[in-house]
Amino acid sequence: MTETLFSGISHLVTPAPGSQRGAAMRELTVIENAALLVRDGLIAWVGAEKQAPPTPETHDLGGVAVVPGLVDPHTHAVWAGNRLADFEARVAGVPYETILAAGGGIRSSIAATAAATVEQLVTLARPRLAALRQSGATTIEVKSGYGMDFDAELRMLRAVQVLGHEFELSPTLLIHVPPTENREDYVRGVCETLIPEVATESLATAVDVFCEAEAFSVEETRQIFEVAQAHGLKIKLHADQFHAIGGTELACQMGALSVDHLEASGPAQIAALAASNTVATILPGVTLHLGLPAAPGRALIDAGAVVAVGTDLNPGSSPLFSVQMALALSVRLNGLTPAEALTACTVNAAAALGLSDRGSLSVGMRADFLALHGPDWRELPYTLGANPVRDVFVGGIKL
Amino acid sequence: MTETLFSGISHLVTPAPGSQRGAAMRELTVIENAALLVRDGLIAWVGAEKQAPPTPETHDLGGVAVVPGLVDPHTHAVWAGNRLADFEARVAGVPYETILAAGGGIRSSIAATAAATVEQLVTLARPRLAALRQSGATTIEVKSGYGMDFDAELRMLRAVQVLGHEFELSPTLLIHVPPTENREDYVRGVCETLIPEVATESLATAVDVFCEAEAFSVEETRQIFEVAQAHGLKIKLHADQFHAIGGTELACQMGALSVDHLEASGPAQIAALAASNTVATILPGVTLHLGLPAAPGRALIDAGAVVAVGTDLNPGSSPLFSVQMALALSVRLNGLTPAEALTACTVNAAAALGLSDRGSLSVGMRADFLALHGPDWRELPYTLGANPVRDVFVGGIKL
Ligand SMILES: [Zn+2]
Ligand SMILES: [Zn+2]
Repeated sequence: MTETLFSGISHLVTPAPGSQRGAAMRELTVIENAALLVRDGLIAWVGAEKQAPPTPETHDLGGVAVVPGLVDPHTHAVWAGNRLADFEARVAGVPYETILAAGGGIRSSIAATAAATVEQLVTLARPRLAALRQSGATTIEVKSGYGMDFDAELRMLRAVQVLGHEFELSPTLLIHVPPTENREDYVRGVCETLIPEVATESLATAVDVFCEAEAFSVEETRQIFEVAQAHGLKIKLHADQFHAIGGTELACQMGALSVDHLEASGPAQIAALAASNTVATILPGVTLHLGLPAAPGRALIDAGAVVAVGTDLNPGSSPLFSVQMALALSVRLNGLTPAEALTACTVNAAAALGLSDRGSLSVGMRADFLALHGPDWRELPYTLGANPVRDVFVGGIKL
Repeated sequence: MTETLFSGISHLVTPAPGSQRGAAMRELTVIENAALLVRDGLIAWVGAEKQAPPTPETHDLGGVAVVPGLVDPHTHAVWAGNRLADFEARVAGVPYETILAAGGGIRSSIAATAAATVEQLVTLARPRLAALRQSGATTIEVKSGYGMDFDAELRMLRAVQVLGHEFELSPTLLIHVPPTENREDYVRGVCETLIPEVATESLATAVDVFCEAEAFSVEETRQIFEVAQAHGLKIKLHADQFHAIGGTELACQMGALSVDHLEASGPAQIAALAASNTVATILPGVTLHLGLPAAPGRALIDAGAVVAVGTDLNPGSSPLFSVQMALALSVRLNGLTPAEALTACTVNAAAALGLSDRGSLSVGMRADFLALHGPDWRELPYTLGANPVRDVFVGGIKL
């Protein structure tokens, strides 16, 4: 048994355990002059430092704020190639269709990723995950989805598996880009070959689908979800990014962990999410990078939904390497308050991954926490372009 | 004489020396497999590595992109106190008038700054300047302007003077907040006491005024500018942030170095800037932080103006501690292309400070440059939430 008392916490700030919805997202517990007892990687006691139990080993944090480790519930952190030329063309006004026709766009990421070995994918993704962790992410979801074929999808997930020895990751199989022909065969292959393989090898804990007018239909999504659930995998969805075609409603009905994007969600989708336990995950990096409308974060919370925030780290639509910045952007772009944003990036983001053992500094939870540079936790939502996180602790161990 | 050849530059990317206007902002020189010879802190030679002159000392940069050091032409990096409570209240919908009435807002920064010693101000500003430098800023402008009285203004400038031993700074006297009464006396004091004192002690190279409906009028600005120029100081202006009341036109007529903000500039102000040598400095951090309209960066360039970009680092309207992020935001929020943004943050930002000896990697210029993490300079405008800058060199010395 190892036991450490973390003292010198000017303010310990945390949401309650479990997903929080609506106004409860603003309810943070703040303990001044606090201490935190960690036993075998879990939180054994939290309270005022004066009342701390006697412990042989003490780690003085020096009078700074402590918050739960952040959870990034949505990344595409494994890719090869880059989209810098696309970026330059797009911001100069070249239409996406022209970029695609010139061999750019998502198909260039798919081609480069298909050409990479697992080892190469690991090497490329490692600094991205390190940047996310340095920004405060103690758990990071990573999706496949740039696979040109099933083998490439599996290589992406194997890369995530390898990186899982260095980072606390949550792997997701993403069914992302439909083929230009033989679409039915493809969906059948996903259901009959890919998902069973992923489940057998435990390469993912969830299956995600990109449900959109230009991607997979609601009916295709349903088929894939049914097979995923039959194989014991959780489900989640990319929906309402450009058009609300019914994916959100389907996901809520089927008990999805989360629906992500929601820029095009209207009152019906907001109501469906608010009435469900499905987490509404918003991705402000896409809004900033592409200049597209923001997801209705404020309206979702006001309607009573469970809202989470993620980076959506990916080379095409969100080159955002900081979960702290995603948190900070959600306040500016989606109308969240600082307290709501902290809840969105901790317990609610954990819930979006089906994880109830982290995101809150409460007894029995994983001792994943951040020590900031100063005593006021609001530096976390406030600061732009610098990192207010001094130390990242995972399971009570400083990284 | 010290001489070092910097080799291993995959791409050396630079604008031409001197301020660049309109379409010329997009004209970058790119040298592949380049080298850079530094002699006594200045660039002595630039070209293809194969043709480099023999030099005893070589520093291999390892095959990455090199760009000029960035210049941050607009910061309020010296302040005491914080605005975290204001931030929390504002984003929760509390009107600014209510925040002011409760003792918050800019007057709280003024009160806290007035209560601080020069030493305290230095200690508070140092990590902010270090963050800016780490983000790529090799020259940083710093303004006074939170002085409750002239002594406090002078203390701010003395703090900048002290920090000038550690950072390459450009100090500006900012006439920021008019007093609620005895306004005429105040302006007279600025002209007869403050400016002469600042000029005699060489505490600033320029005088800046906040010309706005709620701050100083165009006529007051003219008075202050005339005195500044009579004392050999350059002039610059905060104008058109909320209303275009004529400050921009005045500044262009009087030969100001720059007019900054410009969110409310219309065709007349854009035309005045395009017809002048006055730099149009835009501040995208304010747009992101406050959710206000963006300055018309695209229209200014298309009209032929000299456009620069700055952080406007300050606690109330732009807690943006990265000049790289200011550059990246100008592409997303103001419609600049990556090449234009690089020019805006280098030679044009230097011109906004009256400096023609930096911002371009050309013979005779200061050897202020950045080595990035990778070989493609476009990581600089592209990356959000991480720092693509590996090494910062000032006068050829790695910091
Ligand atoms: Zn995504
Ligand atoms: Zn300013």
